[in-house]
Amino acid sequence: MLRIDIATLFPEMCENYLSESIVGRARKKELFEINCHQIRDYTLDKHRRVDDTPYSERQGMLMQAEPIWNCFKAITEGRDRPHVIYMSPQGKTLTQQKSIELSKMDSIFILCGHYEGVDQRVLDEIVDEEISIGDYVLTGGELPALVLIDSIVRMIDGVLSRSDCYEDESHYNGLLEYPQYTRPEIWQGKTVPPILLSGHHANIASWRHEQSLITTYEKRPELLDFEKLDKKDKNILKNYIDEKNK
Amino acid sequence: MLRIDIATLFPEMCENYLSESIVGRARKKELFEINCHQIRDYTLDKHRRVDDTPYSERQGMLMQAEPIWNCFKAITEGRDRPHVIYMSPQGKTLTQQKSIELSKMDSIFILCGHYEGVDQRVLDEIVDEEISIGDYVLTGGELPALVLIDSIVRMIDGVLSRSDCYEDESHYNGLLEYPQYTRPEIWQGKTVPPILLSGHHANIASWRHEQSLITTYEKRPELLDFEKLDKKDKNILKNYIDEKNK
Repeated sequence: MLRIDIATLFPEMCENYLSESIVGRARKKELFEINCHQIRDYTLDKHRRVDDTPYSERQGMLMQAEPIWNCFKAITEGRDRPHVIYMSPQGKTLTQQKSIELSKMDSIFILCGHYEGVDQRVLDEIVDEEISIGDYVLTGGELPALVLIDSIVRMIDGVLSRSDCYEDESHYNGLLEYPQYTRPEIWQGKTVPPILLSGHHANIASWRHEQSLITTYEKRPELLDFEKLDKKDKNILKNYIDEKNK
Repeated sequence: MLRIDIATLFPEMCENYLSESIVGRARKKELFEINCHQIRDYTLDKHRRVDDTPYSERQGMLMQAEPIWNCFKAITEGRDRPHVIYMSPQGKTLTQQKSIELSKMDSIFILCGHYEGVDQRVLDEIVDEEISIGDYVLTGGELPALVLIDSIVRMIDGVLSRSDCYEDESHYNGLLEYPQYTRPEIWQGKTVPPILLSGHHANIASWRHEQSLITTYEKRPELLDFEKLDKKDKNILKNYIDEKNK
């Protein structure tokens, strides 16, 4: 069973999210284990300080090495060393492939930075991998850690119910998803595409594939490698583009 | 003042995060306004259902158009139409530039999907823009909405204290950050780089710039456009690479 330990200055923030919805449900079923640790509990400073100003003139506060190191040692003592991830804008950008890899591990330790960052020496000492969730700046590492955990644990067997789990998801097969419709059949004068009511499964499958191709072409063209498409798919897109340019 | 409305099936999950840390503090200071709305409060179904199976054979549940539409109408009634964002893996990937743009708006409405997605007709009706936070799959739109909000509101004047706020952040000037160090001077036998203790501000600035270049080259080389670097920076990298290959 995958065990995840999070070291953070905001354990309640993480705990709150991880107790709700699909992730919380799966946690209660003990499909994986998550523990949120307060780094502040591991400082020896009598005022429970965990940060200090960076060396040289720069403003701001940096998390100190020692409390993080103590936290890491306490959590990992007497067991196999976990894979240690530091959430950082400097890390490699998270991909679905990376989440799948991580979901197969035994033990992950996630360090969340806050303030301006963390003393480089403790990062050099414990971190195996830095991961970024994207090229934008956030106030801390907690949301990125939750994003990472959410994407990892949903890949664990039993976390998604059969109805949550399917293979047509965006980014699963390299194409975006086709549009979807539910009841009622007519809403605000807009009808569901008639083919979806036809019952012809093969035709519906073709239509969906076509819609996936077109959606991807319209919204995220960089995901499509036109040369690698088969002849049928090339024709679908050609016809769509010809039709559009009429 | 920026007003953000979030429509979700998990308003408490959002509310919890948005009450803590830097974002929570700024919210209390009324530097912006955020309201989390329960879409379920806007269904007319007597069992408070907001979802149904998608048309045709596929498994899973889809959020229905009507409760979302009712929620949107109730929230926007009698005021200017907000900019409507749907958090979706189909959207354009979030960038720092996009967060800065959005931080200057008056009013943003964020729709969070859950289950397998949302009836396409209500998306066609209300959504101005779809945003993705990255190419990975998550269990819902709530974490992406929180990531988006965190990156937006930290750009609002007054949200970051002067000490939080500086221009050397990763992704701010196209380079990753240099390593940072705080007290004590010697930790576990590792010393702070002596230059940081020298007091020579110009030398420290050069060292930091050099470290930023090298860090970017090592960790995220795709962010560097070697041809666009000035002669000095080209030399720094050349020397570093020569040294490494010795």
